[in-house]
Amino acid sequence: MPHLPIPGDMPGPRGLMTFRPETAKPLSELAEILLRGPSTLSQAERELIGTFVSSQNDCQYCQSVHGALAAHLLKGDDQLVTQIKCDFLAAPISEKMKALLMIAGKVQQGGKNVTREDVERARQLGATDLEIHDAVLIAANFCMMNRYVDGLAAWTPTDPDFYRQRAAMLAEHGYIGSPGRS
Amino acid sequence: MPHLPIPGDMPGPRGLMTFRPETAKPLSELAEILLRGPSTLSQAERELIGTFVSSQNDCQYCQSVHGALAAHLLKGDDQLVTQIKCDFLAAPISEKMKALLMIAGKVQQGGKNVTREDVERARQLGATDLEIHDAVLIAANFCMMNRYVDGLAAWTPTDPDFYRQRAAMLAEHGYIGSPGRS
Repeated sequence: MPHLPIPGDMPGPRGLMTFRPETAKPLSELAEILLRGPSTLSQAERELIGTFVSSQNDCQYCQSVHGALAAHLLKGDDQLVTQIKCDFLAAPISEKMKALLMIAGKVQQGGKNVTREDVERARQLGATDLEIHDAVLIAANFCMMNRYVDGLAAWTPTDPDFYRQRAAMLAEHGYIGSPGRS
Repeated sequence: MPHLPIPGDMPGPRGLMTFRPETAKPLSELAEILLRGPSTLSQAERELIGTFVSSQNDCQYCQSVHGALAAHLLKGDDQLVTQIKCDFLAAPISEKMKALLMIAGKVQQGGKNVTREDVERARQLGATDLEIHDAVLIAANFCMMNRYVDGLAAWTPTDPDFYRQRAAMLAEHGYIGSPGRS
């Protein structure tokens, strides 16, 4: 049960954002730009970074909805999403993506863990400065959202169908167009 | 030395935001609403929550600039800022503020640490639902910004005068009006 009285018992950040629409606006805009805006990283790659960080933070709502969205964008490849969460180094993804996930995992633990060598390695594997920037900010952003959702005990449905439906809506309408951010 | 080529060698998030202005806009708007928008928490109280969380995350830039801003808003009371960072339970602040800082500290460790009892205690000491919401989101927001700044090794000046001047500028112009967010 959520720590705050959420209008309409809405789940996840959607409920929190209805409670506080003033902060919902920049939170949704940030997600839209970072996860769906113009980028040389695919939307699926960006959602995988968010899913991985949410999984490391043990945030059930965020890893479920963003994992479902990544799978939706990957034509239903649930298995890849699970692999990324469990052992991304063994997953069939590019070496560049592995280097960015390595950086994202270090950001999750605390920003100072990211070394010059981590960044150089990502560059050598083809990551641009903008991709490195965005991987760090996506990871940091999920560290915020995971804490927002769990810190206020937002309602977290257990039915996988809920997340599949929410993912399809986010894929179609985005973080600003869909009711609530995710 | 920052991990990315920052235009004009600008310090802290200001440099990162110049590198990526698209994400700078919602980040600045979020800070403006949370830390300076209409609230029953004073600006100083909100800056103290951010300073405390940044200190727990060991982010030198953020704890310095937000600590200097809190001190500026408190008519130069550096000592209170230091006390909040070291042992807020012994600081001369309201019991409500102590309960909100307790919640913020738990959010810093991970959202699931916040219990129903923590929230009830804050309520009993006079905190409104909106204040509890904002304490959680401020703490979560600083967990993002601390990771953004340190994850990209943003330039962190060592001269206290830098932070005092920056704090005075933020107090006057805010997070949107000042060049860079903080």
